[in-house]
Parts: sequence; structure tokens; C-alpha cells
Amino acid sequence: MSFAPRPLPPREKYSSLAAYRLMLQYIHERELNIGDRLPTHAELVHELGVCHCTLATAMKWLVVDGVLTRRQKAGTIVSELYPRFPKRSIWQVGIVVPPLTSSYFFPVLTHFQHRHLGLNGLADRTYMLSVNAQPSSEVHVRRPSDFSGLEEDIEAGMLNGILTSTRLMTDKIPVCGSASSASTFGVEIDQSAFARQALTELRKRGCRHILAGVRPMDDGFSHLFEEAVEEAGQQMGRSLVRATGMTGVEYGYRLAQQVLASPASRRIDGVLLRDDITAQACASLLARKGRTDVIVATQTNLQIPMPFAVPTILFALDVDELARLSVSMLLKKLLKPSLKPQLSYLAPRLQETGVNSAEFYTHISA
Amino acid sequence: MSFAPRPLPPREKYSSLAAYRLMLQYIHERELNIGDRLPTHAELVHELGVCHCTLATAMKWLVVDGVLTRRQKAGTIVSELYPRFPKRSIWQVGIVVPPLTSSYFFPVLTHFQHRHLGLNGLADRTYMLSVNAQPSSEVHVRRPSDFSGLEEDIEAGMLNGILTSTRLMTDKIPVCGSASSASTFGVEIDQSAFARQALTELRKRGCRHILAGVRPMDDGFSHLFEEAVEEAGQQMGRSLVRATGMTGVEYGYRLAQQVLASPASRRIDGVLLRDDITAQACASLLARKGRTDVIVATQTNLQIPMPFAVPTILFALDVDELARLSVSMLLKKLLKPSLKPQLSYLAPRLQETGVNSAEFYTHISA
Repeated sequence: MSFAPRPLPPREKYSSLAAYRLMLQYIHERELNIGDRLPTHAELVHELGVCHCTLATAMKWLVVDGVLTRRQKAGTIVSELYPRFPKRSIWQVGIVVPPLTSSYFFPVLTHFQHRHLGLNGLADRTYMLSVNAQPSSEVHVRRPSDFSGLEEDIEAGMLNGILTSTRLMTDKIPVCGSASSASTFGVEIDQSAFARQALTELRKRGCRHILAGVRPMDDGFSHLFEEAVEEAGQQMGRSLVRATGMTGVEYGYRLAQQVLASPASRRIDGVLLRDDITAQACASLLARKGRTDVIVATQTNLQIPMPFAVPTILFALDVDELARLSVSMLLKKLLKPSLKPQLSYLAPRLQETGVNSAEFYTHISA
Repeated sequence: MSFAPRPLPPREKYSSLAAYRLMLQYIHERELNIGDRLPTHAELVHELGVCHCTLATAMKWLVVDGVLTRRQKAGTIVSELYPRFPKRSIWQVGIVVPPLTSSYFFPVLTHFQHRHLGLNGLADRTYMLSVNAQPSSEVHVRRPSDFSGLEEDIEAGMLNGILTSTRLMTDKIPVCGSASSASTFGVEIDQSAFARQALTELRKRGCRHILAGVRPMDDGFSHLFEEAVEEAGQQMGRSLVRATGMTGVEYGYRLAQQVLASPASRRIDGVLLRDDITAQACASLLARKGRTDVIVATQTNLQIPMPFAVPTILFALDVDELARLSVSMLLKKLLKPSLKPQLSYLAPRLQETGVNSAEFYTHISA
């Protein structure tokens, strides 16, 4: 396999940091292992297309950072595949953040992505929707020009990769999606697994008639959730009621009213929802009307405890883990640009203990 | 008044962007106005201590960006005090983010700060608590070395200013606090105004015995809130009960239990809290126990609607405005480094309409 990087822009030819990056990519594209020996300096200068002095500085840094070791006679050896505590920021990553809508998910995800980029020695810049961008939901397909400064920074070669939760379209630099249904490379949330497990948990706790709030958000995951509910509905027959509607608090209140209005013969005693704020709203009105017997199952992508007014089965999405996975996938792509498109899935997990668990709830309200 | 910038590091002498920044600072330190004429090129080269060619490039950029205008005979005139749509990022700002604790406030504040930095043509990098930093609450006094990469970037001259919500101590570059009680320069939240107004609103709605949850968070604002409650208590006598405790959901449940246990002679019918998650927890348990007559007054620093299980009076902190103010104050300091320490205050505002208002609540539960 040959490693043939694209011809470098003139400036990069003399940048030791660019040479440092190229060396890391060389190691990963060639699939070298710890202990493998590198070609001679002259061969590397030729293969990477950088200047002799530039490469010499980069090699010195790689030795200091523990990636390479120089051995008398044996030459230069690979001693680590990635620097453990890099002395300088190797890559500059852009985080492209969608506008704040009905959830704190994106600011919290961004928070953790900053953290994991820092832990991996990656510098970052954050790009927000520009004032001139067309307003739309977060699923609208976006271009770099929709975000303040992003297109200019890509053109200026200031960015090496992008992490995004928007449907960002660009083929100029590697893009890693996180919870973005439009990506071909990145991490997605497993909504189907959540729907199936949540219905199982509700029935296990004795629910006979379940109301499922489908399509409360139009974020591109709705169809996965809806398909799983649909499939379950075929098994459960008339004991599963589907309700479509708008987003957030008002939708939650409307679902509660639907529960309150259900006839005695098909009295709804369980609610399945994809979103915690909607679930809180639904629970609030149910509690106020004395229907504290209804069990709500919901997904939450928040990291701090949330109170609910009726017993709630929570499936928590580990946003820190989502951030870690997305940063680690982007890093893989930066190290090995030839990597093929791939998606990984993260499922929300049933929360068994803590202030949000049904057990705590029973304890506190006893 | 003379403008005497500190001697420039050698590299800066040849950086057109540094000269561009110095020219903007020159205009602001000298308090020049639109229409004022600049000294000759030779005089400026001497005063700013930059190279002739470097300044020439910077002046060209300032003309393109609309800050300066060249007039035959009249020389170079100030036409704007700040570029409206700068073609390049003028300053690089570090956002220093405290760890995520019991609130989404910081990720949301950071979200809006990114937005306002971008709107003002400022580039940013975000710094998170390093793995090696001592764990502690968010009020702990922090040094740059506590945040991944921050000290290195300050030393390398990569940052021009810092926005922070932590008690960050450094005198190396300008720091603007936002909702950080330790700053001498920045924006703070007016907790006293909130406590006074919230008590007034509770009494206006007929509350006779009010439970005030003081010190639910140890974030440095507690004392302002506590003092205001204390002062009100002296007027209200035994009708105001103070309760101290831990943070968040469990504290909310405990307050609800205190309400439920209050004797008939001094039955508590109002609760004052500083934090919305605690308030939601308190409201949830009250509703479940049938005490839907209790009114809760709380501050919220979140930007999306939140559901509560009992009538709630919400005081919303406009986090977008807080971010705008902090970015605008930092920008003033960057333009005029001689600016004296100053603090501005932002008060949470009574939310009269929308899904969180008492009116909507009454409507939906009717």
C-alpha cells in the first residue's frame, strides 16, 4: 500500500506541525505497529513532500511526545500510535452547533465534545448559525456558508476536521456527525432499541394501554422511533395508541389530556415519549388531576437528575459517551484519511438507580 | 493623553493583524471620533512600534473593513469605531467553562457566548477543566493551569482575552467574568432584585406563609440572595421560614416534605427558590400529595419552556442577553486596555406570558 498525500499548499511544506500530522497519518495509513522501523529521513522527505528541516523538527517533536524513539543502529522506531499528552494542539477542529431549539441537548453535547477534544490534544473553534442563514429546523441541510466564519476558516486551511450535529454538507474536510441523522460517518442514537425496551418495561410494570407520543420532534430520528412503535403496535393491537403532535411542553399537556379522556374500557395507564421535557409536562398535568398511577417512560439526554410528578422509567443517553465516541471517530479519520464511511450507534440505557429511578420515586413519595 | 503600548514581542512587530488590533486600540485609547484625522504614517509607525510594511497592510485592511477612509489632501479619517463585518477574526478569545454540575446554565451560557463572539468577528477557543485539576465546586479559585491547554496558549500569545464563569485568576490577559461572583470586571446576576420581587409576587397572590430555600447552591451568589431573604424576613416576621440544604432534586423533595409537615396554624402556601430543577422537584411531590394550592416562585436561567406540577411564578434570566453583555464588555476592554474595573448587573425578569406563566397553567389545568 502506498501513502500518497495530496500535494501540499506552499505554506504547509515549511510547517513543522503539518509535517507532524503527516507523520502520524503515514504511520496510520501504512498500518505500522509499535516497534516498526521508519524509512530513512531522505525517503520520508520524498514521500511526504515536506522540507528536510521541517521534517527534522517534526521528528524531534514526535520523539519528545513519545510517538517515536531513536535507537543507535536500529534507526527510528514507532513507540506509540498517538501521543499520550501532546505538547501542542495537533489538529484544529471546528464544532458546528445547530441553533438552540426545544432541548439543551446540543449545548450539553458541545460541552462534552470540548472536553474530549481537549483531552486528546485537539484545539477547537465553535461555529454558530450566522445571522444571514435561513431560519429552519435543525434538520435542514446546511452548508459551511450558513455558519459564521466557517467557510472562511475552511478556505484558509485553518481547520482539519469538523464535528457536527447538523446536516452539514461539505467534501472539503473530514466531517464526523454526532447524533446527526444525515451523516455517513459518525455516531447516532439508537432510537429503535429505546422504543422496544421502553415498551417492554412499561408492560413488565403492568401497563395495559399505552399511549405513544410519536413525532414530537422533527429531528430526523422520528422515523426510527416511529417504525419501532409501529412494529410493536402490530403485536400489541389496540392496547397501543399512537399520538402525533407538536413539540415540547404543550404537546405533553395535550397527551395528558388524551390520557385523562380515555374511556374506562381502555383506560390509558402508560405513556411512551422520546423527550424528557414533554414527559415532565405530561406528568405534571396527570399528577395535578390525580392520575399518579400512570407510568411514563421517556428518554433523557440530559446529565443531571430531573424530577417527574408521576412514576417514570428513564432511559438515559450518555452524552459524555456520545461526545467521547464522536471525538474518537473524528480522530481516527484525521489519522487515517482513507477510512471508509461508518456509523456507530449508542443506545439510551435504563436508569435503575438514583433520584430518577422508579425506586427512588416510590421511596420519596411513600 | 498619550498612547504607549507595551513593547511588542518580536513576532508581533511584523504581524499585520497585531498592527490592525493596535490601530483599533489607538483609536479607542485616544478617544478619537468618526471624522477625526489620523497622524501621518511615519508618526504611527513610531508610536505603535511596528514595521512600516506591517502597518501599511493593517491600514489597507482597516480601509477595506470600513474603519478608515483615505481622502485626497485630508489624509486618513476614522469612519467607523469598529468594523461592522470584519473580514478576519481580529481577536482570539478563550472561553473558560466550569465543569457541569447541577445545572445546564454554563453550557447554555457558553452556547450564546460563542454566538455573540462570532457576531462580533471574534474567534474563540474553549477550555475545559483539565483531568489533573483538583476537583471542587465551581466557586473554587482557579488558575490557568487548571484548564487543558489554557496556560500554554496564554504563554504562546495565542489568546487576547478570556470570558469566564469561574473564579479564574490571571493578570496576564484581560478577563471578563460572566455570572462569576469573583470578577472585578464583567456581568453579574442581580439575585437581590430577584428575591425581593419574587416575595412581593408571592404575597400579591395571597401567600401567607412562605418557605424560602436559601443556599441550595454554593456558587458565590448565595449570600446576595440570602441577604435579601433575611431583610424581607425582618419585615415579614414569622410568616417567612428559611430552609437550608443540599442541591437539586433531593433538596426540592425535602422542601416539599417541609411544606406538607407545616402545622395548620402556619400552613405554608408559598415557596421561594433560586433554581428551577429544585423547584420542579418540590412541585412534583406537592402535586402528588394533592397540595396543588401551593405557589412556587423560582428563577430559571434556561431558555426553553419548563413544565411545573403546581402554579409557578417564573423569573427568567435572559442568558442570551447575559452572553451579549459579557462579550460586549470584553470587546470594550480589548479595544481600550486601560479601561477600569467595572461590573454590570442583569436581573431575572418576571415571565408574564407563555407556557410557563401562571395564566397558561391555570388555562391548561382548567
